Amino acid sequence: MAEKPIRFGIIGCAEIARKLSRAITLAPNAELSAVASRSLDKASAFAKANNFPPSAKIYGSYEELLDDPEIDAVYVPLPTSLHVKWACFIAQKKKHILLEKPVALKVAEFDKIVEACEANGVQIMDGTMWIHNPRTHKMKEFLNDKERFGELKNMHSCFTFAGDEDFLKNDIRVKSDLDAHGALGDAGWYGIRSILWAVDYELPKTVTALPGAVLNEAGVILSCGASLQWEDGKVATFHCSFLAHLTMDITAIGTAGTLHLNDFIIPYGEKESSFTTVSKSGFNDLVTGWAAVPSQHTVMTDLPQEACMVTEFARLVGNIKANGAKPDPKWPRISRKTQLILDAVTTSIAQGSKPVEL
Amino acid sequence: MAEKPIRFGIIGCAEIARKLSRAITLAPNAELSAVASRSLDKASAFAKANNFPPSAKIYGSYEELLDDPEIDAVYVPLPTSLHVKWACFIAQKKKHILLEKPVALKVAEFDKIVEACEANGVQIMDGTMWIHNPRTHKMKEFLNDKERFGELKNMHSCFTFAGDEDFLKNDIRVKSDLDAHGALGDAGWYGIRSILWAVDYELPKTVTALPGAVLNEAGVILSCGASLQWEDGKVATFHCSFLAHLTMDITAIGTAGTLHLNDFIIPYGEKESSFTTVSKSGFNDLVTGWAAVPSQHTVMTDLPQEACMVTEFARLVGNIKANGAKPDPKWPRISRKTQLILDAVTTSIAQGSKPVEL
Repeated sequence: MAEKPIRFGIIGCAEIARKLSRAITLAPNAELSAVASRSLDKASAFAKANNFPPSAKIYGSYEELLDDPEIDAVYVPLPTSLHVKWACFIAQKKKHILLEKPVALKVAEFDKIVEACEANGVQIMDGTMWIHNPRTHKMKEFLNDKERFGELKNMHSCFTFAGDEDFLKNDIRVKSDLDAHGALGDAGWYGIRSILWAVDYELPKTVTALPGAVLNEAGVILSCGASLQWEDGKVATFHCSFLAHLTMDITAIGTAGTLHLNDFIIPYGEKESSFTTVSKSGFNDLVTGWAAVPSQHTVMTDLPQEACMVTEFARLVGNIKANGAKPDPKWPRISRKTQLILDAVTTSIAQGSKPVEL
Repeated sequence: MAEKPIRFGIIGCAEIARKLSRAITLAPNAELSAVASRSLDKASAFAKANNFPPSAKIYGSYEELLDDPEIDAVYVPLPTSLHVKWACFIAQKKKHILLEKPVALKVAEFDKIVEACEANGVQIMDGTMWIHNPRTHKMKEFLNDKERFGELKNMHSCFTFAGDEDFLKNDIRVKSDLDAHGALGDAGWYGIRSILWAVDYELPKTVTALPGAVLNEAGVILSCGASLQWEDGKVATFHCSFLAHLTMDITAIGTAGTLHLNDFIIPYGEKESSFTTVSKSGFNDLVTGWAAVPSQHTVMTDLPQEACMVTEFARLVGNIKANGAKPDPKWPRISRKTQLILDAVTTSIAQGSKPVEL
C-alpha cells in the first residue's frame, strides 16, 4: 500500500537541522513540508540553502508551523533547555516528535514530554542516528551470538572532539542556560546509548563518574567519563570530551569474542561502513602471536543513517495515521534510560564521584 | 667491537621461559648458557624441548646455577612471591637480572631488589616485551609530535583474556601465595605500563579503582580496572581481566590526533605489525563524514619483540662488563612506577574504590 509521505516541519534553524533536512528529503516516506524560525528571513534563507521543495512553507514563528494542519511531524533541534516546553506543546498539537538529544535537562522533564505524547497519541523518537544504521544491526547480531561473542563482560566507548576557541566560548553546547549538559549531553549521550544498546537496554546497578571531569566557568561539562556496573558483573566505561581530537570508539568484550569500531557515531563512509570482530582467539603455543586475528565486516546502506532514522520514525507515524496503530513505546523507553544514566553521571560528578544507584 | 655474547641462565621452567629461551637464542648478543630447576630431570627436559645448545649446562637447583661464574645474567620467570628473595640473592651473586612482571608483591619489595642491584652494580630490567618492539618507538614518535598528536588528554587501555576452567582453578596467577596480584599483575601491568609510556612516565596524581572488581575465593583479582588522573587534567582508564575474550587495546587521544591499536602486547604478526593514527580530523560540512580518516602504519622488525628486549638488556650488561659502565637506572625506575600504580589500584580496591594519592 503506497501511503502518503509523512510531512515534516522543522522548528529552529540549528546547524544540525541542515543534516536532517537532507535526511528528510532522502527518506522515501517523508517530505520536507515547512520550516519555522523566530525570523521569517532566517527561515526563508534556511529553506533556500537546504533544498526545500518549492511547496514548502516558511513560518516566522514556531506556533504558526505547529498550527498548520498539513504538518504530521516536527523535528526539534532546539537547545535542550527548551525541549520540555516545546515538545509538550507539539504533542498537544497532535504532531509527532523527532527530538534532538539529549532529550531533556532531567529525566523528570522527559517524563512530562512522554506523558504529553501518550495523552495525545503521538510518536516520539530521539535524534540518535547511528542506532538506525544497518551496520548497527549487524553488530548487534554479533553481540547477540552466544557462539561468537558469548556474554558481554566489559565495554568501553568514547566520543571526543576538539572544539575550537569559538566553540568553547560561544556554542550553545557550552552554555548553562541552553545545553547545560555540555559534553556529557552532546557527546556522552552516545557513549551511554552505545553501552545500553550493547546490554539490551538493561540499566546498570550503579553509575560512578570518573575523577577528573572538566567544567567551564558556568559549570558546564567539557570533559568527563563514568563507570557503569551491573548486578551480574558486567562493567563499562565511557569518556566524552570537547577538548580532545575526534575519536568515537566502541570496544565490546564478551566471553567468546570482541567487537571493535572507531567511527560508531558518524561512519567514515555514508554508504559503506565497517567493524571488526574476533572470536575464540587466544595465543599460539609460544605466546608469540594470536590464534585468530580480527576480521573486518563491511555493511552497505543505500540511505545515510540519518535518513534511515527518519524513515523508521516516519514508518511508525504512518502506521499510526493510516492504521490507527499505537505509538511505539520502544523509542521513548530507550531515550529515558539514556537520560536516566546521564542524570546519574551529573549527580555523581556533583558528589565528587560518589556511586549513584539506579 | 665484537664483544662476547652475554651468557644467560634461566631459573625455573615456567611456560613463559620457553618464549624467553627462543628470544635469547635469537638475540645476537646473548647466549643460552644454563637452565636450573628444582629437579634435574625437569631442567634437562626443558633444555631439550627448547633447543638449548649442547654446551648449555643443566642444574638441579637454582643455587648451583647462580654459583656458576660463567653465567652473566639470569632470567627469572618465578612466581611474584619469590621475586624479592631470588632477585636479591642473584644480585649478591653479581649477576644481572631480567625479571618477570609484576616485579614484586609491593613496591617496598622491589625497592629491596633495586637496592641489592645497586649495591652489586648489576643491571635489572623487567620482562615487559612490547615496549621494546620497534613499532612502540614509532608510536611514541607520533605521541611526541605536537603537530600530529598535540597534548595527551585521554587514554584507554585494556588487556583481557579468557582463562579456561583449569586456568581459573590451578594457574599460579590465581593463587594468593604465588602471583597474588592475579589479573592486575599479569594483565593490568601492561595497561598501567602503556599509560605510563604514553605520558613519559609522569606519575598520576590519583589512582582510583573502578567499581566492579571480581576477586576469587582466595582474594585474587580476576578482573578490575582503574582511573588515573594527572594534575594537568589528563585522564586515563584501564581494564584487565582473566574472564573476557582476548583483547589488547590502546586508544590515546591528544588535542590534535588519535592513536589506535588492538594488539599492543602481542602483535598479530611477529615481523610486521601496525597501528593507526589520525590527525586534525573533524567533520565535513554537513557532519555526515570525517574530514580525515585514520591511516595505518606498518613497522617491520627482524627480531621478535622479546628478542629485542633481550638484545637491549644484553647490550646494557655488555656495556657494564666491557666498558665498566654503570647500570642504566631507566628500566628499574619504569618498573617501580608501574608497581607503584599497581599497588595503588590494589589499595583502592581494598578501600572500596577510594582514590589513592601518589
